[in-house]
Parts: sequence; structure tokens; C-alpha cells
Amino acid sequence: MTIVDEPGMLDPARARASFRAGVQAPTTGWAAGYTQTNLIAVRKNWAYDVLLFCQRNEQPCPVLDVSDPGDPSTVLAPGADLRRDLPRYRIWENGRLRAEVTDATRYWRSDLVAFSIGCSFSFETALAAEGIPLRHVEQGRNVAMYVTNRQCRPAGRLHGPMVVSMRQIPEHQVDDAIRITSEMPAVHGAPVHVGDPGALGIADLGKPDFGDPVRAEPGDVPVFWACGVTPQAALMASKPPFAITHAPGHMLITDRRDDEYRVGRR
Amino acid sequence: MTIVDEPGMLDPARARASFRAGVQAPTTGWAAGYTQTNLIAVRKNWAYDVLLFCQRNEQPCPVLDVSDPGDPSTVLAPGADLRRDLPRYRIWENGRLRAEVTDATRYWRSDLVAFSIGCSFSFETALAAEGIPLRHVEQGRNVAMYVTNRQCRPAGRLHGPMVVSMRQIPEHQVDDAIRITSEMPAVHGAPVHVGDPGALGIADLGKPDFGDPVRAEPGDVPVFWACGVTPQAALMASKPPFAITHAPGHMLITDRRDDEYRVGRR
Repeated sequence: MTIVDEPGMLDPARARASFRAGVQAPTTGWAAGYTQTNLIAVRKNWAYDVLLFCQRNEQPCPVLDVSDPGDPSTVLAPGADLRRDLPRYRIWENGRLRAEVTDATRYWRSDLVAFSIGCSFSFETALAAEGIPLRHVEQGRNVAMYVTNRQCRPAGRLHGPMVVSMRQIPEHQVDDAIRITSEMPAVHGAPVHVGDPGALGIADLGKPDFGDPVRAEPGDVPVFWACGVTPQAALMASKPPFAITHAPGHMLITDRRDDEYRVGRR
Repeated sequence: MTIVDEPGMLDPARARASFRAGVQAPTTGWAAGYTQTNLIAVRKNWAYDVLLFCQRNEQPCPVLDVSDPGDPSTVLAPGADLRRDLPRYRIWENGRLRAEVTDATRYWRSDLVAFSIGCSFSFETALAAEGIPLRHVEQGRNVAMYVTNRQCRPAGRLHGPMVVSMRQIPEHQVDDAIRITSEMPAVHGAPVHVGDPGALGIADLGKPDFGDPVRAEPGDVPVFWACGVTPQAALMASKPPFAITHAPGHMLITDRRDDEYRVGRR
């Protein structure tokens, strides 16, 4: 359990420093209790469409911060460098994945606007605190994510399907999981669906579109939450000339505490 | 009490129709239980700054909908016409108030983007339902609003102070008011301050910057919430060439129910 447990005890700045130094790993379970964010950076002339897409699709795309053009910093993590402090990045051209890198500095541009978007890892701390098991953490895997048949509300040139993350939850704890996450609307909120993958157009839970397949235990029910990878699906569908994103599951670890995003528990 | 009670029983479409027909009144207390919104419409080349300003200042400026350029409709109220269905509008040029009108159709432009922003009237239903008196409604007045000494986080060309609305709350009910409104983050959430107007730079509660002065009853404490008039203060400070807003207290009445914006009570 060393691989999973020690990173969980790091503070955010040390976690970011280890990624900057070249450590590669999905960030699930790292720096427990601190908010992780999805990254999407686009050129200034696409920033309004991205920001509006997020406003119109708040459940998959809750915006926690937006940088000024060219500025690789964020108020969520003073001292962090958005170009280097995530473990893995994706470079996109015209909607196609051109490269996966561990340092995006040489791809950075002076007109890039970086969006930090809430992540379902934020509610995992709250789930675990109430005794709900996290199968992907137990199994040492990235969370499983799927493209669904639900279309987001378009915004300008941006359109695309909603992506969800899935967690196998023991049936008697599903109501608790719904209650806990409904109190965290800034990090995807309540599930979008419980039970039937087919209702979301997912043919095979064993073949996620992003992340790793995760094994169910007896009595588990698949529960689906809106996912911050949704903007990447919109990039693929909408083909802006250039974008940098995190690699799915490889997030920015911020200095904010997850419980800051729990309504009524601040 | 006729003036206050009958409008409260109207459904949203009938309330909007009466404003379209020329009725003039602040909308506080109208169509009880339905969400009211602040309006700010700017030309497309200012829309990113407004949307980003709202993202960076979510407590005063929670965005509930954004229209496409030139489109005077909103998903919040199908069939509504944003140019005519509010009781009173303000027309702005270069940060100066040029006109107040009851129909903004002749000022509308094909490149205007309309922002519908959450309003504290939405939590008044919830306060009243738990027995907390609303002094301005009892007194048949508009709510009192004040410009504060707190600066919003700037966004592009937009900057300005936070505006607050104030309600006199019986001291023994202040904790309830905090709890209830903290559950409604999409409509300003918990108070930004309780008790001392001077802490917000407000010299005289009897002289609000917007709305009407409201009389305190013995034992009342002034409680201050972030206010959706904040974008108007930003217009005055930042001077975009053209904007249309609602007149303070004269809101759009939408078809959404206030309780849709109460976390965990959907």
C-alpha cells in the first residue's frame, strides 16, 4: 500500500514539486483533503466559448479559476506553475491529440487562457470519511471515465458529449453517496445516474474511454458523476486550433481544502 | 396589503405580461417562490470580461444564464422577452446612466449578450417560510442596497466595488438566516457581514445607494448579503461604451422555482 498511502500524506506544494521533478502518476489519492483540478488552456480567441460552455454545463465543468492570458499561475495554488506542476499533459491541435508530455513549458503561448475545473476526486475524501470504499484507490488504479450519449448545451463553437466518472458503490451506501456529493455542487454535485450504464449509452464498463477499468465487488452498484474531462471531449468534437489539457486523472493539486467546496460545512 | 399580496400570487408568465403591458413596480414579493434575476446586457466584445468578472466574483454575481448575441430570450423563462418583460430598465453609455425606461426594445442591438444573474429575492421565500420577517416587504418598499468598500477581483477591463443588500433581522433569528442562505450559493449564499455597517464602509443605513431605506424594529440586527447590482457598480467604474441593465429591484421573474437553487433540497 506504500504507493497509495504515502502520496496521500504529502502537502500540495510537495506533491507539485515531485511532479515538477518528473514523477509520473495519476493523482487520485494524493495530498488527501486538497482540491484537485482539471486543466484546459486555449488561445484567447476561444476563451469566451470555453467559459460560456462551462457556465452552460456547470455540472461537468465547474470553473474554479481562470488565468489571465499567458499567465501560468492560479489563485488556487500560489507559487504553482501550470506548465510544469501537473504529472502529465496532453497537447491538442485541431481537435487531435498531438503529444502527451510531462512538462508543457515549450508548448505554452503568451495568449493562452488556463481554466481550472473542479474534479470528482474532491468528493472522494468526503465519501471515504463516511466509510464509503473507493474501489479504484483500493485497486491502485485511475478512476474509470466514459463518454456518454448526453450532449452538453453548446456555446459558440464548442459542443460535445458529457463525460462521466464511475464508482462502484455498495448498494446500502448509494443513498449516502448521493447525499454527500449533492452538498458539493462546485465539484460536480450529485450523480447524474445510478445503476444502468446503458441509460448513458455506455456499452461495456470494462472498456472505459479514459482511465482504467475498475473491478466491482459483490453487491456494488455503478454510480456515475459528471466529469471534468468533458471539456476534452468538446475539444475533440469542436476542433479549436490549439489547446493544452491535463491527461485524464493527472490533475493539478491545489492549496484549497476539499471541504471549502462543501455547502454549509465551511 | 393588497399591493403586496396579490402580485405574490401571480404566476411568472402573468407577472411578466403585466410588466410588458406597462405596470411599474419593484418585483420584491411578486410571484412568490419563483426565481428573479438581475439583467446586464453588453456588446459581444465586452461579454468575456463580464462573464469572467462574474466567475471571479461569484458571490455577488452568480450567473444563471447567458444569451447568444442579439437573442432576447433565456432558458430560465421560455417565451419571455428580455427587452420588455422587466418593469424598468437602465440604459448606460460610457458608464453613465443615460435613460430609465419601461421598454428597452428600441435600445436593443444585434450584438448584445444578456446575462441573467441570481438575486437575493430568491432566498426571501426560504427566509419567510421559516418565520423570518422581511421588513422591506412589510413596509411596502424596495430592499436597501449599498456600495461597499470591498473591491471585486477585476477581470479584463471590468473592476468595481461589491454592492450589498441589507435586511434587518431579529437578533435571535440571525443564525437561522445564515444557515438558510448558506444553502443557496447560486443566489448569493451566506451573508458577507452581520452587524456593523461601518465595517463595509457604509456611513448611514438611512441613505442607501439603491432601493429604499428600510426601518428597523427593536431588536433587529442589519445583515448584509452580496448583491446582483454589483455589475452595475462595475459599469459605472469601468465605463463600457454601452449596456442595458434592470433598474435596481425591478427584476426578471423567471419560471424557475427558488428551491431549485437550494442545495440538497431539490
